[in-house]
Amino acid sequence: MANYLDQITWNDQGLVPVITQDVNTNKVLMFAWMNRQALTLTLEEKRAIYWSRSRNRLWYKGEESGNIQYVKELRIDCDHDVLLLKVEQIGAGACHTGRETCFYQQWQTGEWIIVEERSVKP
Amino acid sequence: MANYLDQITWNDQGLVPVITQDVNTNKVLMFAWMNRQALTLTLEEKRAIYWSRSRNRLWYKGEESGNIQYVKELRIDCDHDVLLLKVEQIGAGACHTGRETCFYQQWQTGEWIIVEERSVKP
Repeated sequence: MANYLDQITWNDQGLVPVITQDVNTNKVLMFAWMNRQALTLTLEEKRAIYWSRSRNRLWYKGEESGNIQYVKELRIDCDHDVLLLKVEQIGAGACHTGRETCFYQQWQTGEWIIVEERSVKP
Repeated sequence: MANYLDQITWNDQGLVPVITQDVNTNKVLMFAWMNRQALTLTLEEKRAIYWSRSRNRLWYKGEESGNIQYVKELRIDCDHDVLLLKVEQIGAGACHTGRETCFYQQWQTGEWIIVEERSVKP
């Protein structure tokens, strides 16, 4: 029987996109990537561990900021190529700018406008 | 002044990932891609129009099913390389399987389990 990792369609870099959502508010917090090792560790340790494409290494979310994400639920889409991770977000939020969510800019008549303030200074 | 399209970091295929969320329930409905034309049309017509990578053409969401998505809000992330589209979902849902959301399978002790039933037959 194929295990759950084999049932994921990994891209040609061995990665799968991950949408991270706050389990309490349902706010979409961020978007990142995982490889097989990151996902395995995420489920073992029950905290979000991504694959950083820019740093080319495992990224223990909150390793510097302390803003850890505790995993509450994991879903996969119909095509088995996107993950949805529901987390309890610790600290000021998910974004490196000090905001709850990375999606703090809104399209308004042709411009991107900041609509959410920082919880803390970055 | 650069316009909002130029402020998006498009990938090497000229695409940007899009997370689509129900504006009323905050449920994450699906994940897809847009190119510049798809995003321009989406904002002009106020309905979701994606780029289908499998069919290599514009994909007017609901063109076959009638399950149109009316655009209520558009956000971009801190890195300007992911979009979050908040929509009013028409019909049975976003998923081609007849479910409200594409994320209807949940990880449970090593297996992907269906946790949401169909609203209608596909």
